[in-house]
Amino acid sequence: MPAPDLAAAERARQRQSRLTKPPGSLGVLEEVAVKLAALQGTPLPRSRPASALLFASDHAVTRHGVSPYPPAVTGAMVENFLRGGAASSVLCRHLGVPLRVVDVGVMRPLSPPAVEGVSFRRDPVADEPGGDLRVEDAMSEATFQRALAAGAAEVDALPDEVRLVVLGEMGIGNTTVAAAVAALLLGREAEEVVGRGTGVDEAGLARKVEVVRDAVRRLRGASPEHAVRSAGGRDIAALMGAAGRAIERRKAVLVDGFIVSVAMLALERMAPGAREWMLFAHRSAEAGHRHVLESLGARPLLELGLRLGEGSGALTALPLVDAACALHAGMATFEEAGVPDKGRG
Amino acid sequence: MPAPDLAAAERARQRQSRLTKPPGSLGVLEEVAVKLAALQGTPLPRSRPASALLFASDHAVTRHGVSPYPPAVTGAMVENFLRGGAASSVLCRHLGVPLRVVDVGVMRPLSPPAVEGVSFRRDPVADEPGGDLRVEDAMSEATFQRALAAGAAEVDALPDEVRLVVLGEMGIGNTTVAAAVAALLLGREAEEVVGRGTGVDEAGLARKVEVVRDAVRRLRGASPEHAVRSAGGRDIAALMGAAGRAIERRKAVLVDGFIVSVAMLALERMAPGAREWMLFAHRSAEAGHRHVLESLGARPLLELGLRLGEGSGALTALPLVDAACALHAGMATFEEAGVPDKGRG
Repeated sequence: MPAPDLAAAERARQRQSRLTKPPGSLGVLEEVAVKLAALQGTPLPRSRPASALLFASDHAVTRHGVSPYPPAVTGAMVENFLRGGAASSVLCRHLGVPLRVVDVGVMRPLSPPAVEGVSFRRDPVADEPGGDLRVEDAMSEATFQRALAAGAAEVDALPDEVRLVVLGEMGIGNTTVAAAVAALLLGREAEEVVGRGTGVDEAGLARKVEVVRDAVRRLRGASPEHAVRSAGGRDIAALMGAAGRAIERRKAVLVDGFIVSVAMLALERMAPGAREWMLFAHRSAEAGHRHVLESLGARPLLELGLRLGEGSGALTALPLVDAACALHAGMATFEEAGVPDKGRG
Repeated sequence: MPAPDLAAAERARQRQSRLTKPPGSLGVLEEVAVKLAALQGTPLPRSRPASALLFASDHAVTRHGVSPYPPAVTGAMVENFLRGGAASSVLCRHLGVPLRVVDVGVMRPLSPPAVEGVSFRRDPVADEPGGDLRVEDAMSEATFQRALAAGAAEVDALPDEVRLVVLGEMGIGNTTVAAAVAALLLGREAEEVVGRGTGVDEAGLARKVEVVRDAVRRLRGASPEHAVRSAGGRDIAALMGAAGRAIERRKAVLVDGFIVSVAMLALERMAPGAREWMLFAHRSAEAGHRHVLESLGARPLLELGLRLGEGSGALTALPLVDAACALHAGMATFEEAGVPDKGRG
């Protein structure tokens, strides 16, 4: 992973200290500007253009009744994204962010029409089989590699000038597989990382814990790569591939909730230093998220009880990153404004 | 204070339950939409047009060395607002929000040119004397009434269609007077509500506590009205007047940090029910803010370590209110999208 530009960060920090405000009084917004300066290698970083990539996949684990929604909802929601009716479609339109939806494993093939600002691709990896992590590997080594490549290809297709990549996912069952990966990467018990996802009831939650416990028993001690290949899914692998390529191209990654964070944890374990390139949007209501964030040393921008996924939390936080950059670039310095600074008062 | 429209809130809640997402998965964003529906009396509330009102005043208490900045900074910052270089100027421009700066007590009279989107008025109350709360009343009864009226007049001058009023302030010394008002309204000791403001050092902090302690000793047991008149300032009174009139005109108020929150607490004590009309933007880094928020039953949208004032925290949170309204109005229902709901899966 490339190294952030510490000289650019220092120049941004110097600029912050001269802006017409008490030092540090913009709190985390100052930190965001300085961090982006380091990533973009300039003292005047930008949050735009931003681009949203959303990876969708079904999961064989749904056969165990781990979600209150039927698996058909994955495909139906992809169509909803493309027609502009889903939360992330609305937020992308509202914020002027192009939304790219990539099918990496939806059972029902889709090629629906899309509204302006939204585009779609079905990657061939979507036709490969996905295993039930309770009893078998979710992906073969080859499928895993192709899912990583599907994510990377989407970043390669983005315009060079894109500064910020917003990552999201859709997949009924994917909080279950993410919990299994988290348990393996963090060495935690199923109970610590399994949550209610889209709102599963007590009986479903118990089934979910049971499934994750079986996967963990089967895979305990696996390497990060083996853990994510065997317990993850093509959506999670594609998220990793997209983030990895974004970082190689020195683009910051705006991380959504539990599932994207688990993918980013797996990436960090496989490519140490990756997390330096991530901005964490929000602490979700999903139970296991805090453990994942803690392990990544992440302090998210928002905590609003969100638990929708689809990149919706990241898109909700994007205006904060925009504000951080606007303030950093647009505020006058004490000298420019002729305002007495405290040292010279 | 008028009563929120509970029928409109219920219709908004019904709509939320039909949108293509698990119920409750947009967390606080759902609550914001429902609350605004109640305030605006419509199941499809809007956050825009929004308008920012910023009240500036000096404070005689600065003679005790309670701020690291000289009092001249108040006037210099007003000029900075008008020229577009301050944090709130940048955010207003970035967000398309008209910024109105109102001088209600700046020592040095100003009538500077303003950039597009910013306007300025010096209210005659600015020429009246302001007392040092340590030893005398900050305002006479007549000055207090005129400062309230100055705030109300600004809301009356807003276009009818404005849905959201963003309140902010500027005034070297005003965290000290706000702390004194908070101590009196909350029955707390000076130490519990005094913070570092713009970043006062240990010695300055001790002076600040001493000043607030003297004011509290002088005024303990005062009615809310007496407390704010005697220990507050024209900026705080104008904020109360503006919020009160906004609420009478059924406009929601987006509350900034410590000082605006203290003004809102005083308003709530004088006009119970006012707080129902307030959205709380952020929990500031200023020490006393949490006590004020707690007393108002407020759960702010953001906690980013901001402590700048000027309405900057409220403006940083405005895009979250925008997102809440955009999602509420723009998302498809399960019926519209043909997505299987879990009840029918």
